Amino acid sequence: MMNKQMKLAKRPVGMPDESTWVLEQNEIPTTESLAEGDILVKQHYISLDPAMRGWMNDSRSYIPPVQIGEVMRAGSAGEVVASKNERFAVGDFVSGWGGVQQYAVTDGRGWYKVDPSLAPLPTYIGTLGMPGMTAYFGILEVGKIQEGDTVLVSGAAGAVGSIVGQISKIKGCRVVGIAGGPVKCQYLIDELGFDAAIDYKSDEPVAKAIRRTCPDGVDVYFDNVGGDILDAALTRINRGARIVICGAISQYNNTTAIKGPSNYLSLLVNRATMTGMVVIDYASQYQEAGMQMGMWMAQGKLKSREDVYEGIDNFYDTFKRLFTGEKMGKLVLKVID
Amino acid sequence: MMNKQMKLAKRPVGMPDESTWVLEQNEIPTTESLAEGDILVKQHYISLDPAMRGWMNDSRSYIPPVQIGEVMRAGSAGEVVASKNERFAVGDFVSGWGGVQQYAVTDGRGWYKVDPSLAPLPTYIGTLGMPGMTAYFGILEVGKIQEGDTVLVSGAAGAVGSIVGQISKIKGCRVVGIAGGPVKCQYLIDELGFDAAIDYKSDEPVAKAIRRTCPDGVDVYFDNVGGDILDAALTRINRGARIVICGAISQYNNTTAIKGPSNYLSLLVNRATMTGMVVIDYASQYQEAGMQMGMWMAQGKLKSREDVYEGIDNFYDTFKRLFTGEKMGKLVLKVID
Repeated sequence: MMNKQMKLAKRPVGMPDESTWVLEQNEIPTTESLAEGDILVKQHYISLDPAMRGWMNDSRSYIPPVQIGEVMRAGSAGEVVASKNERFAVGDFVSGWGGVQQYAVTDGRGWYKVDPSLAPLPTYIGTLGMPGMTAYFGILEVGKIQEGDTVLVSGAAGAVGSIVGQISKIKGCRVVGIAGGPVKCQYLIDELGFDAAIDYKSDEPVAKAIRRTCPDGVDVYFDNVGGDILDAALTRINRGARIVICGAISQYNNTTAIKGPSNYLSLLVNRATMTGMVVIDYASQYQEAGMQMGMWMAQGKLKSREDVYEGIDNFYDTFKRLFTGEKMGKLVLKVID
Repeated sequence: MMNKQMKLAKRPVGMPDESTWVLEQNEIPTTESLAEGDILVKQHYISLDPAMRGWMNDSRSYIPPVQIGEVMRAGSAGEVVASKNERFAVGDFVSGWGGVQQYAVTDGRGWYKVDPSLAPLPTYIGTLGMPGMTAYFGILEVGKIQEGDTVLVSGAAGAVGSIVGQISKIKGCRVVGIAGGPVKCQYLIDELGFDAAIDYKSDEPVAKAIRRTCPDGVDVYFDNVGGDILDAALTRINRGARIVICGAISQYNNTTAIKGPSNYLSLLVNRATMTGMVVIDYASQYQEAGMQMGMWMAQGKLKSREDVYEGIDNFYDTFKRLFTGEKMGKLVLKVID
C-alpha cells in the first residue's frame, strides 16, 4: 500500500491542464515516524473548490500560494489511523486541510472531529464545512439580509450558492438563483424552494431575466461568478443594496485582465456597498454556525447535496467540472475506500 | 435689464460641446409676478461641478435628469431681491439650487441663509456647500477614518478632494493626494498640509507612486475619478480598507462602456468595502457639519480655495475646465455683479 499524492508540478496560465499536477506514490507514514503531537489521517474525501485555482497563482492573496512540488491544498475528511496527539484517538473522524492525498500527517491545528452518524462525511466538507460557513457568514454578516429582502445569488446550484439561497429563505427573503441550464434551475425551485431561477445559458439576457424575476429590485446580490453576470446584477440593485463578493469563477482562468464591473457606478447612484469576504476570518464563530446549520438540516430546512466522484487518479477530470459546471452541488472526490 | 439663462438644448454624447446649451434672455420676474411663498434671488455665483455631466443623461439616477429646454441645474449663491416668503427678507444672502441663470424664482425649499461677513459668498457653494458636505460625510461616515489611517484621495486639488484631505489631516491620518501636474501637487503639500502628492500626469506609474508614498498601504481610498487610478489604488489597499465612490470624472464623457475596476477582486482578498455615496442623503445633518467646517475654517485648520471665472456667456469655457483640470480648487462662475 502506498500514499497517492497529487502535487503541484507547475503554475498554470489560464485553465490548468493535466500536466499542472503530478501524481506521486510515496510510503504511507508509519505510527513510529509520527512526531509527538502528530496524527495520521486516512482521507476518504477531498473537497474541490473554485478557490483552489487562486491558490495556484504566485501572487499576494489571503493565504500563501501552493508551492511547486507541494501537495495540492484542499479541504478533506477522513479517519484518524494513528495518533500521537491527545486531542485525537485512532478511529476518530476528522476534517481539516489535508490536501489532495490519501494519507495526511498533521499536528491537528485547524482540524476538528466530525460525527458520521449525524451526517455523511462529504457533508462535513460541504454544507457543514467551508462552503457552508462561507454561505452562512457571507449572507448573514456581509449581506446583512433582512426579512422581505430580495436576494439574488449566482452560482446558485453550487456548494456555496445553494446554501446562501436556502438560508435566505429561512430568514424570510425572496430568493432568485442564477445557474447554468434547466436542470439546475428546476432543482433550485423544486428541491431548494427558491422563488425563481435564471438560466444564464438561455437566450434571455441575464439583465432582462433579473428584471423579470426581481420586479422590486435586488437588495442583496451574492456573487460567486463575476464578469457579465455581476454587471447585469448591478443594473437592478436597490438603494442601499449589499453586494457580497465571494468569488469570480468566470474570471479565474483569464489570461488577460479580469473584467471589472463596468456598472460599478450603480454603487454610487444607489448608495450601495460591494464587500469582499474570506471565510477564514470567521473561524472563531464556526462552532455556533455549525450547530445552527446542523439544526436546520435536522429540521429539513436546509438540504445538502454532494456530487461525489471517485479515484485520486480522476482528480483532474473532476477538478475541471468546477469550471465547466458539470456537477450539482458540492463537488467531492473520494480518494480512498 | 434681462435675465440671462443657460438652458439645456440637447443631450450630449461624450464631452458636451458648446451647442449643448443655449443662452436665452428673458424678462426678470417682477415682485408682483411672484406667487405667495416665492422669492426672487439675484444669483451672483454659480457652482460648476462634475455631477452636472450626469444630470444631463436621460437615465435612472439619484435625481431626475435636467430636461431639454430647462435651465441647467446648478448650485448657486446670491441675494434676495424680492420676497413673498416670511422666511426670507429682501437683502438676505442665500444659497440653493438656482440653476445657471442670473435671477431665480424659488419657493425657498432647500435654500438657506448665509452670512457673507463670515465667509465670501463663493465659499458657501464650495467648502461650506455641497462639495464640502460631500467631503465631510464621505470621509467621516462612509470612509470611517480612524487616527493613524493612511488616506489616499484622487482629484485631490479639487473642491471635494482638497477638503477630504484636510479633514483627514485634522483627524490624525496620513494623507496622500493624487492630482494632475506639479503646481497642484505642490499646493497640496505646501498649502494644505498633505503628507505626499502623486502627479498622475508624470512618468511614474500611479500604482508605483502609491507604493512609494503609502509604504504601509492604503486604509481609505476616496475616489473622485475612476478608471485607471481606481485600479491602481485597488492594488495597494489594506485589509478591511474602505473605498468611497464619490465620482468618476475620468469616465463621465465616455462614449463606450465605462471602465470597471479590473482589480475589484482586491476587495475579496483584502475583505475591503467599496461604497457609493450621494451627499443629499445627509441633508438632515448639514447644519452640524456646516458649523464644524466653519469652526475649522475660523481656526485656520481648513483652507478653502475657489477659482472664480466671470460671465454667464463664459459658462461653456468654464464648464470645460472641470474635465481638462485647468482650475484650482472649487470652480465658480460669477454670473452677475
